[in-house]
Amino acid sequence: MEQLITAEIITIGDEILYGQITDTNSQWISSQLDNIGVKVKRKTAIGDERSEILGAFKSAASNVDIIIVTGGLGPTNDDITKSCFCQFFDCEEEINLKALQDVQAFFEKRGRELSPMNRLQASLPTACTPIYNQYGTAPGMWFEKEGKNFISMPGVPFEMKAMFTNDVIPLIRDKYKLFSIYHQWIKTVGIGESIIAERIKPIEDALPNQVRLAYLPSLGEVKLRLTCFESDKSIAQKQCDYWAKKILAELKEEVYSLEDINLVEYIAKQLIDKKMSLATAESCTGGYIAHQLTSVSGSSNYFKGSIVAYHNDVKQTQLKVSESILEEHGAVSEPVVKLMAEHVRKLLKTSIGVACSGIAGPNGGTQEKPVGTVWIAYSDEYKTVAKKINLGNLRENNIKLTCINVLNFIRKNLR
Amino acid sequence: MEQLITAEIITIGDEILYGQITDTNSQWISSQLDNIGVKVKRKTAIGDERSEILGAFKSAASNVDIIIVTGGLGPTNDDITKSCFCQFFDCEEEINLKALQDVQAFFEKRGRELSPMNRLQASLPTACTPIYNQYGTAPGMWFEKEGKNFISMPGVPFEMKAMFTNDVIPLIRDKYKLFSIYHQWIKTVGIGESIIAERIKPIEDALPNQVRLAYLPSLGEVKLRLTCFESDKSIAQKQCDYWAKKILAELKEEVYSLEDINLVEYIAKQLIDKKMSLATAESCTGGYIAHQLTSVSGSSNYFKGSIVAYHNDVKQTQLKVSESILEEHGAVSEPVVKLMAEHVRKLLKTSIGVACSGIAGPNGGTQEKPVGTVWIAYSDEYKTVAKKINLGNLRENNIKLTCINVLNFIRKNLR
Repeated sequence: MEQLITAEIITIGDEILYGQITDTNSQWISSQLDNIGVKVKRKTAIGDERSEILGAFKSAASNVDIIIVTGGLGPTNDDITKSCFCQFFDCEEEINLKALQDVQAFFEKRGRELSPMNRLQASLPTACTPIYNQYGTAPGMWFEKEGKNFISMPGVPFEMKAMFTNDVIPLIRDKYKLFSIYHQWIKTVGIGESIIAERIKPIEDALPNQVRLAYLPSLGEVKLRLTCFESDKSIAQKQCDYWAKKILAELKEEVYSLEDINLVEYIAKQLIDKKMSLATAESCTGGYIAHQLTSVSGSSNYFKGSIVAYHNDVKQTQLKVSESILEEHGAVSEPVVKLMAEHVRKLLKTSIGVACSGIAGPNGGTQEKPVGTVWIAYSDEYKTVAKKINLGNLRENNIKLTCINVLNFIRKNLR
Repeated sequence: MEQLITAEIITIGDEILYGQITDTNSQWISSQLDNIGVKVKRKTAIGDERSEILGAFKSAASNVDIIIVTGGLGPTNDDITKSCFCQFFDCEEEINLKALQDVQAFFEKRGRELSPMNRLQASLPTACTPIYNQYGTAPGMWFEKEGKNFISMPGVPFEMKAMFTNDVIPLIRDKYKLFSIYHQWIKTVGIGESIIAERIKPIEDALPNQVRLAYLPSLGEVKLRLTCFESDKSIAQKQCDYWAKKILAELKEEVYSLEDINLVEYIAKQLIDKKMSLATAESCTGGYIAHQLTSVSGSSNYFKGSIVAYHNDVKQTQLKVSESILEEHGAVSEPVVKLMAEHVRKLLKTSIGVACSGIAGPNGGTQEKPVGTVWIAYSDEYKTVAKKINLGNLRENNIKLTCINVLNFIRKNLR
């Protein structure tokens, strides 16, 4: 019978607590455990302090089945993880012959001499089974006590990842009979989390226990993720498909993809499929849209370039928007943004031209055109359309949200 | 008498445990607390589960003075943080009038209607004091119980950061008598962390106990931060100044600033002081340099625009680089990048033009010009200079590193 196996990830090291480095290890480990259907119940980060470490071990052992520990295995003095394991599992530390051979081989291979400090890396708690570290000198450790499995790995990401993939995952699969798990993405843009929640509430309320829905909001976008746990993977997949279709039917064109791709990747795919090319004429975004479009590899297949007309002179000299129109309507206006899109398309000889002009802030707003007022435009050989959007006061967000609005405007006009 | 104040950061949300998003909030909060001399003892991430949340509150309250909670305040079903606070502080949830006014104002300002679900955001545990959220609809909450302070904030980074900086830090300063602390920044660019460490080792070894040196490396830059804890702020400042001067004397022109400003802000200041204007001609960076230059408010005082010539046609038609030169030398070459810089300066009528052309990768490399080969140029009325840089294989890093190299090239040629 399958069981829902739970895990906790414990990260040891002062540098995490000081906020000097990002703990990318625990995110990676979470996603790996999630992939095999192990439920991560908690992540804990603590410093190199004995009482904290022992407290975390004790609390985790009473809370979950698998405890993954990273960090604190280096040869330097502040690393007390091993001695904490000895205390927790009531054993001594001594040189492990298998581990010593591995460390010696590691140094021989690199023509380096084994220092006494390096030799100490083979000194392990007698209660553990060493886990081979193919890229480093600190072996991993696996402890089992009263049905709980402790796995200790070095904090160096590429050492940890290899160890986890090659040895730890098979170890866990071997220990526990795991549920099959399936994920289905539903990517939306231009609709808020709360509005989505209201619209799909009946569906959400009807979800069976084994299907979970997560909201992953980011600026301007909300990713929905359906997760299903089943004994049979194909059943899990069928379940996700069934509920994804229901959500899709409700949210309709607010959904741009059911795959795990972002909006730029989606548009890139569309443009390549349609053999279309794109250019941007940007004012308030200052090149950010072009940057986003070129952030994916292969963008030269659809993106030709951009004219960033931050100053009105450039709108006149480069984008050929006449001074009279700029004076009559102002730079942030429908006629100007339409001409920018049309002209950049013709100047750069692309099938599509997009443009934006607005007040990013925090300064430059007026009564009539407050900070956050932005005009965006789309132009192809058949039509040129524009749209006014009203954003907030935060410059950085206004730039990013304008970009997302322009990308979404491309998506809707491409259909 | 000053005390050492301790804190725990609790992050709530299944998405963190699933490993779908990186928890950048807790790192940022750690560094902010570290800045004011509050010691972070533990970070905990848990899912939207009542028992987990209440357990974490209980454990934290017995472990530290300040508990910072982020996430779980959205309007969607999976967010149960508020009801957990009610249970923990033994109170009811009801509409808070101050919070309701804020939420209503937020929606009125954006010309949007207040949905019933949004109205619920103003419903708060009666035991809390609301904390104003200037960028979102979910207010923060501050609870105090038996000398322990709980601060709950939304998980959306820009909402959380504004709230933490404007309200939470002053609140903590006000509650506790913290050590006087002084920071001195030493901003370097174009020199690696290990090289810096070697060069200033004698200085670092001589630092007294109350002075700490932190290395904060980011792509292409290393920030050094001297921190001094003293009972008297002026003594702390004198200490930092003394050691900063020693480090500056060693690192010399690798240091661009002793203030907490980034490279773009430094260059912006220089250009405004010198009354100079700037334009960029970008190929491999696809508009990223222009985006960086316009990311700071007031950039219209020195930045006029950019021509993003991603495709060679655009280098010819817009930047007037002749086909023959492109064919003779190739797009990634000294003559081409120099002409790009010169021409964009003349076309956009600015005092400075900069340009770059390179192979960002992962594809497009050749034997002679492998991925990571980039030419950058600087042009003003007196000179046009170029430089070849060799980067790695990672597209995203190559784009960002090219930008930093161009900015540093501007800095060195401006002097």
